[in-house]
Amino acid sequence: MQVAMIKDKIVPVDELEPVYLDRGIYFGDGVYEVVRSYEGRIFALEEHLQRFANSMAGIGIAGVDIERIRTRVRKAFGAADIPNAKIYFHITRGSALREHDWDANSEPNFFLTVMEAPDDKEEKSKGIAVSTHPDWRWKRCDIKSLNLLPNVLARHDAVQKGCVEAIFVDEAGLITEGAASTFFTINGQTMKTAPLTANILPSITRVFAIKAGKNIGLEIIEKSFTPQQACDSDELFIAVTTKDIVPVVKFDGKTIGDGKPGKYTKLLIEEFRSFTV
Amino acid sequence: MQVAMIKDKIVPVDELEPVYLDRGIYFGDGVYEVVRSYEGRIFALEEHLQRFANSMAGIGIAGVDIERIRTRVRKAFGAADIPNAKIYFHITRGSALREHDWDANSEPNFFLTVMEAPDDKEEKSKGIAVSTHPDWRWKRCDIKSLNLLPNVLARHDAVQKGCVEAIFVDEAGLITEGAASTFFTINGQTMKTAPLTANILPSITRVFAIKAGKNIGLEIIEKSFTPQQACDSDELFIAVTTKDIVPVVKFDGKTIGDGKPGKYTKLLIEEFRSFTV
Repeated sequence: MQVAMIKDKIVPVDELEPVYLDRGIYFGDGVYEVVRSYEGRIFALEEHLQRFANSMAGIGIAGVDIERIRTRVRKAFGAADIPNAKIYFHITRGSALREHDWDANSEPNFFLTVMEAPDDKEEKSKGIAVSTHPDWRWKRCDIKSLNLLPNVLARHDAVQKGCVEAIFVDEAGLITEGAASTFFTINGQTMKTAPLTANILPSITRVFAIKAGKNIGLEIIEKSFTPQQACDSDELFIAVTTKDIVPVVKFDGKTIGDGKPGKYTKLLIEEFRSFTV
Repeated sequence: MQVAMIKDKIVPVDELEPVYLDRGIYFGDGVYEVVRSYEGRIFALEEHLQRFANSMAGIGIAGVDIERIRTRVRKAFGAADIPNAKIYFHITRGSALREHDWDANSEPNFFLTVMEAPDDKEEKSKGIAVSTHPDWRWKRCDIKSLNLLPNVLARHDAVQKGCVEAIFVDEAGLITEGAASTFFTINGQTMKTAPLTANILPSITRVFAIKAGKNIGLEIIEKSFTPQQACDSDELFIAVTTKDIVPVVKFDGKTIGDGKPGKYTKLLIEEFRSFTV
């Protein structure tokens, strides 16, 4: 008899709940999104849904109606009634006995949570410390997949060092992005971030951070740079859906500027806020 | 109220079963093993348990007693009573609300299945076709983690092309290994496979395949090679836990030798069989 074991309990495979056979857990065979709301309004939902559709297409999950995902997000958000919420959702290729290749007829599994958005007041007012970590991720980070172990390990390393975020450095010695954020420098009136390649997530918050930069008169350059160049910058910040713009005041132990959030970063936070009201 | 949604059903987050909050599904934050039995005896269990311990250490899952894992494997194998079984087990860092960093006190989740081993008679007698795919995997493939989406995508691509396995080719144009196997060439009396690096899984079956090669008088070389060099070989084969040695007779559409399993590969299959009785 084919059996499964959950912790110490033996159960026939036939009686397993489908969630135990989710390809998400066997292979990370799924994609996800994180959206947030400000004061009761979901921000940039259409952009996130479009990226979600792109991620599904990128791994060949077909037949999922984005209209239905939109309805689910709105329904759950309404039920939660949390004005400043972090909405997470993923879809996996479905539940099946473990085989690398998939059955074209498998029905995807959808899962979503609506939680309170993190309180970012202190991080925004004081800035955060970040540390670098080798970029161990796979080569298709343009797909927002559930294969996040390198991000987890890098973030853990950062927290052990007293930092809030890890910044990935690739084999060429160039910064790609944060473990769960986009990384920017500001020098003079120039704001810089790595260009979008197959190994950079096309971050929605990155788009709005760039828009905010243009609005406050900064020149935007999409070009890779080194940790040393980051260290030598006037200002640093990260952009992330759940906290939008967060100033970075320490990089691998080195204090940036006077150790306080920079003037342009503060203007960017204000400008970003104007997008969300 | 913090809510979750499973397909279309809304449930309070507090009432979610822990399996829905498994870090395995959120991040692929876990490691696994596949062991097989021959005629009622588990093959190389200690080697697999040692690698499992190494994988856990590699991602910082601590406090799991290998003795207990051994007991579970034996207990489930006994309950299944399948002489030629494929035993899969994984451990994840535990269940928690989604945060990249982990709680040191989280209790790992263990899951195991015992199924019939695949029937490999035809593959062994006729050989299989393989196709190449870019190696998109992360940079720590020495850790047997649940981040397997690149393997899934490569295998799917291979199956679409009428092949059984995908062979990864890295950015330098060199073959690393199969999506779920080690890849070997035989030329003259020389058997070759890529050396163990941070991006090659230290396969247990690889160890026994090399031992078998030595036993039948082949010279073993651990050195990387290109797809063209593979194409030009006398014989090709893959080594994989569930099917041990499988001859490869077609590589990216090109027939190898006379299109039948090679003489040394057949000797390797015989020699490997002697290890398992």
